Amino acid sequence: MSATRNAALAALLALTAGAAAAQDTKPEWATSQWGPDDEIGAANTMTPERIKSAAGLVTEGKMYSLGMIVGSDTPAFPPRSLSVTVLQPNQTETSGLGENAFTYNDDIFMGWLGIGPQIDGLGHAGVDHMYYNGHTVDEFAGAAGLSKLGLEKLPGLVGRGVMLDMAKHFGTDMVEEGTPYTEDDIKAAAEAQGVSIGEGDIVLFNSNWMNLLDGDAPDPERFGAAEPGLGVSGAEYLASLGVMAVGADTWGMEVVPAEEEGQAFRAHQILQPEHGIYILENMDTRELAQDGVHEFLFVLGQARIKGAVQMIINPIAIR
Amino acid sequence: MSATRNAALAALLALTAGAAAAQDTKPEWATSQWGPDDEIGAANTMTPERIKSAAGLVTEGKMYSLGMIVGSDTPAFPPRSLSVTVLQPNQTETSGLGENAFTYNDDIFMGWLGIGPQIDGLGHAGVDHMYYNGHTVDEFAGAAGLSKLGLEKLPGLVGRGVMLDMAKHFGTDMVEEGTPYTEDDIKAAAEAQGVSIGEGDIVLFNSNWMNLLDGDAPDPERFGAAEPGLGVSGAEYLASLGVMAVGADTWGMEVVPAEEEGQAFRAHQILQPEHGIYILENMDTRELAQDGVHEFLFVLGQARIKGAVQMIINPIAIR
Amino acid sequence: MSATRNAALAALLALTAGAAAAQDTKPEWATSQWGPDDEIGAANTMTPERIKSAAGLVTEGKMYSLGMIVGSDTPAFPPRSLSVTVLQPNQTETSGLGENAFTYNDDIFMGWLGIGPQIDGLGHAGVDHMYYNGHTVDEFAGAAGLSKLGLEKLPGLVGRGVMLDMAKHFGTDMVEEGTPYTEDDIKAAAEAQGVSIGEGDIVLFNSNWMNLLDGDAPDPERFGAAEPGLGVSGAEYLASLGVMAVGADTWGMEVVPAEEEGQAFRAHQILQPEHGIYILENMDTRELAQDGVHEFLFVLGQARIKGAVQMIINPIAIR
Amino acid sequence: MSATRNAALAALLALTAGAAAAQDTKPEWATSQWGPDDEIGAANTMTPERIKSAAGLVTEGKMYSLGMIVGSDTPAFPPRSLSVTVLQPNQTETSGLGENAFTYNDDIFMGWLGIGPQIDGLGHAGVDHMYYNGHTVDEFAGAAGLSKLGLEKLPGLVGRGVMLDMAKHFGTDMVEEGTPYTEDDIKAAAEAQGVSIGEGDIVLFNSNWMNLLDGDAPDPERFGAAEPGLGVSGAEYLASLGVMAVGADTWGMEVVPAEEEGQAFRAHQILQPEHGIYILENMDTRELAQDGVHEFLFVLGQARIKGAVQMIINPIAIR
Repeated sequence: MSATRNAALAALLALTAGAAAAQDTKPEWATSQWGPDDEIGAANTMTPERIKSAAGLVTEGKMYSLGMIVGSDTPAFPPRSLSVTVLQPNQTETSGLGENAFTYNDDIFMGWLGIGPQIDGLGHAGVDHMYYNGHTVDEFAGAAGLSKLGLEKLPGLVGRGVMLDMAKHFGTDMVEEGTPYTEDDIKAAAEAQGVSIGEGDIVLFNSNWMNLLDGDAPDPERFGAAEPGLGVSGAEYLASLGVMAVGADTWGMEVVPAEEEGQAFRAHQILQPEHGIYILENMDTRELAQDGVHEFLFVLGQARIKGAVQMIINPIAIR
Repeated sequence: MSATRNAALAALLALTAGAAAAQDTKPEWATSQWGPDDEIGAANTMTPERIKSAAGLVTEGKMYSLGMIVGSDTPAFPPRSLSVTVLQPNQTETSGLGENAFTYNDDIFMGWLGIGPQIDGLGHAGVDHMYYNGHTVDEFAGAAGLSKLGLEKLPGLVGRGVMLDMAKHFGTDMVEEGTPYTEDDIKAAAEAQGVSIGEGDIVLFNSNWMNLLDGDAPDPERFGAAEPGLGVSGAEYLASLGVMAVGADTWGMEVVPAEEEGQAFRAHQILQPEHGIYILENMDTRELAQDGVHEFLFVLGQARIKGAVQMIINPIAIR
Repeated sequence: MSATRNAALAALLALTAGAAAAQDTKPEWATSQWGPDDEIGAANTMTPERIKSAAGLVTEGKMYSLGMIVGSDTPAFPPRSLSVTVLQPNQTETSGLGENAFTYNDDIFMGWLGIGPQIDGLGHAGVDHMYYNGHTVDEFAGAAGLSKLGLEKLPGLVGRGVMLDMAKHFGTDMVEEGTPYTEDDIKAAAEAQGVSIGEGDIVLFNSNWMNLLDGDAPDPERFGAAEPGLGVSGAEYLASLGVMAVGADTWGMEVVPAEEEGQAFRAHQILQPEHGIYILENMDTRELAQDGVHEFLFVLGQARIKGAVQMIINPIAIR
Repeated sequence: MSATRNAALAALLALTAGAAAAQDTKPEWATSQWGPDDEIGAANTMTPERIKSAAGLVTEGKMYSLGMIVGSDTPAFPPRSLSVTVLQPNQTETSGLGENAFTYNDDIFMGWLGIGPQIDGLGHAGVDHMYYNGHTVDEFAGAAGLSKLGLEKLPGLVGRGVMLDMAKHFGTDMVEEGTPYTEDDIKAAAEAQGVSIGEGDIVLFNSNWMNLLDGDAPDPERFGAAEPGLGVSGAEYLASLGVMAVGADTWGMEVVPAEEEGQAFRAHQILQPEHGIYILENMDTRELAQDGVHEFLFVLGQARIKGAVQMIINPIAIR
């Protein structure tokens, strides 16, 4: 049925029963520091000064592709899956279009957008169905796509990238699952690695966890079953600094299992709904770590698909 | 069926009948200047020097999001279509995961990747089923995804962006459909707009054609039915300069209808199979044109999905 | 990620917070007459005697295909949509498989299963998130597919079909939207049309509403915006008779707008969760009506896709 | 882009280069016995007499659901895959629609239609890109769906079903892969099992091959890698009898590996393009075999999706 529909069905669809009444007292975090109409959160910290300053970090002209290669065999949070199909529309037994024989391949994607290297838009993580800036699920997250906080609202993320090498910090080849990055860890790693963290930064943690996918002894089961990552105090610390995004080389960015039993993805909540900070997952930071590169120009232009929550991405780091 | 299959069926599937015999005499263009194993074409022109130099173009710290917003109503080359569905997996009538009530939205994409702002990977356009570096369709373009030339091979495109304002060149608010950009047009526009084009550049043409989508008098039918764009001499000229990518603010980058009757997408063939140059479509260059910005740092990090031909993108321009 | 996952993530996923506590007092309807483990409801009324008796209705050997043809342009309840793509896997520029040149077309379906001619399985319609036999949404309706009440549990529906011609009953070419079929209407139509309704029957209502799709003056907007159909008293009456399924030649089977303002799909609730009766939508009953056929052998074999809620179908009537 | 497009692009899309010229001399089989415009082949053998006669085979009122349950783990011909996703559109944190709290589950299917129990429509199998009634791939099998021979043309298949128990014939619990059913085998099995085969019949072969999926020692790899099945002489014999459809309890119906090296799916070609006979795969015939039921009423109503090649089905046998 086309978009236009007449009044009768529209009325019926409007008959939503029992939607949560506007809560009289929203939690304090539910009001964004960027105003009640804001939909992009910490992306507001992108200023010309910061972008210009970040571009100044390009001293060697080396680029790093942070998005790992993703396919139908990439470990994903269940029941997420994807497939790609390639076809040659209408070209079998023809020479394509025109006397110049224009032939082409096309492709179809069927699947979930939260697989592999991904950005969590501000509509992704919530606290008991309340999301960034106090939006409740019934209000903005219809099946046809997010009406608020969709990733099409975000122009991209450009700024100063900071990479903290947590494997180096913990003195190990690969950080173990269940290892939280606490406020103290972050401070110590930053100091030892000669870098500071400030407002508008994109902070990426390297654990070498991706060695479980493509290293000498791949173990995708272990990769997907748990992970090292950001802890609660670390998340609160980064939020207090006003960072724009936090990423890691793991599927979920934060520590799993959680530090405290019974908690699930608490760092997501601190960053996203409570502070409007973007989360980047499955970022391949290993080459940055090998090169000892701790600050760089970070550029992410995610596809701006209307109503989308997450997106498969490939941010570029340049130093 | 899982990936592993036994010998009997594998043998059967290998029984491909009548595949085009390796042609004794491939056309000259079918051998890449970057060697017989090359899969990334003009992306080989990305050098640290060029990237560093392009970063030097950032003088104001202003970013431009070149990817237009795309949705199920975006005009697309038939029969391409897409949809996004948002859901809350397993959360209806629950408070999500953990005592901290972690709730989340997820999303599913069903559709074609060649919609809206897109990169054509080198596996997209061919001449009578032969593609970049002489690969033939039967050899690399199976239904399960490209085995050669897939977009996962490309780390991204970073370099000097050049925007030529063809609306200004033609002295019009919006260039008419069927208007080709010839070698002479390109030279004249570049000279008048004070910019040169060189090896490794990403060249973008502005026609204001997107006003047909979101302007005062939207006409998506007209938008999708034809377009102004690169002509044959223009394509040959840009290829001779060694550019890395060519983009435009239209759905097909090149002029439609073609300059010569009976031709279809000939400029695609000159750029892609014959020279390994990337094509970028539906790039929203209008703000660059309004600002009179003709050179800038261009950063594209496309999602690296295994075997993919095209990808919905959002390149970032920074000046 | 493959099906096997280790304990850490499994534990995390099990941390569902605040799921509705088992209600102390379920409504009376939430206990099925076919026992607490029953998942097929009124399909339990299929007995060899009834099937044999229904087969005895075949006196002429004429078959009727009740499933209308469905495509991407079929009106659907928003945001449902579908597409079909045809391709020739790995066959462009080859002669397919084997020396015998086996070539083939394949097809991909992307979309919602509740489009066009469809069966609503018992997991479809609920009362405030409670479904047939008292199952609550959080308990059985995960994103990976229904763990209870999925259509794979149903072997099919075979029995005596009864067609009531409501257009004839109301003395009109096509019944108007908003016209409810009440208990009295059903009784009167059945009597006038010389047919009785009994336990295990499949009852189909004809209104000629599909003329809005393929008649002389198609009006798909009107088709999808409202409809004539079963009213509340009619639903209760049919449930009291113990029918197995109720269908109609409209997209939603029951009257829209509802008889009482503020009500939405109340007949669905009476039939499905409260009585375990199947619902069939977009059944093309017009040829039965033209032939004056009011009872017949009805055979539905829906695809048994694991965890599916609805299915596009094509039941066969034979008289 | 909507369906209507203007002349310029339509003209471009019509510029198909080098489509196979109409062959002067089509093979003899390329002209259907049912006339040049026929699109349903052997379904033309359905007559009221045969349907009525088949209904007379219902002596006990027992139904058999021939479609096996299919899910994302069902072995499939590569690269086919499928997934089902269940969601509650717009219902999280609401009580659904209306004061009566109408809640509902919906589902999305992403995947290939040639998985599990399936009908191969007459547009499926060809000989070097020529299909039933002489249609060539470039002429009817565009990406947007088949314009000829689509399954929407077929009203369903109703007739006399015949089950030949080949496990019994070969005196084994399960027939081995690579075992062909020859003309002699078919004649011998039919005679020993007391059944004849005639025009318009649907013939199903039982091998118990499905025990590899759900038996005591499941081996899905073996299931999908090869199979027993119809041989070339058997296919020619059945075609000579004028049967309407041939099915089996295997993924491909015919013997794999083929009887003659270098051949691939030759029986498909004999049945489909050369004789317009339908093929049914993954039919669970085991209960029929256990009951010793060799003839029955067969009813298949496949979903009539416009342009579809194959369809997941669940035919019903009734005796």
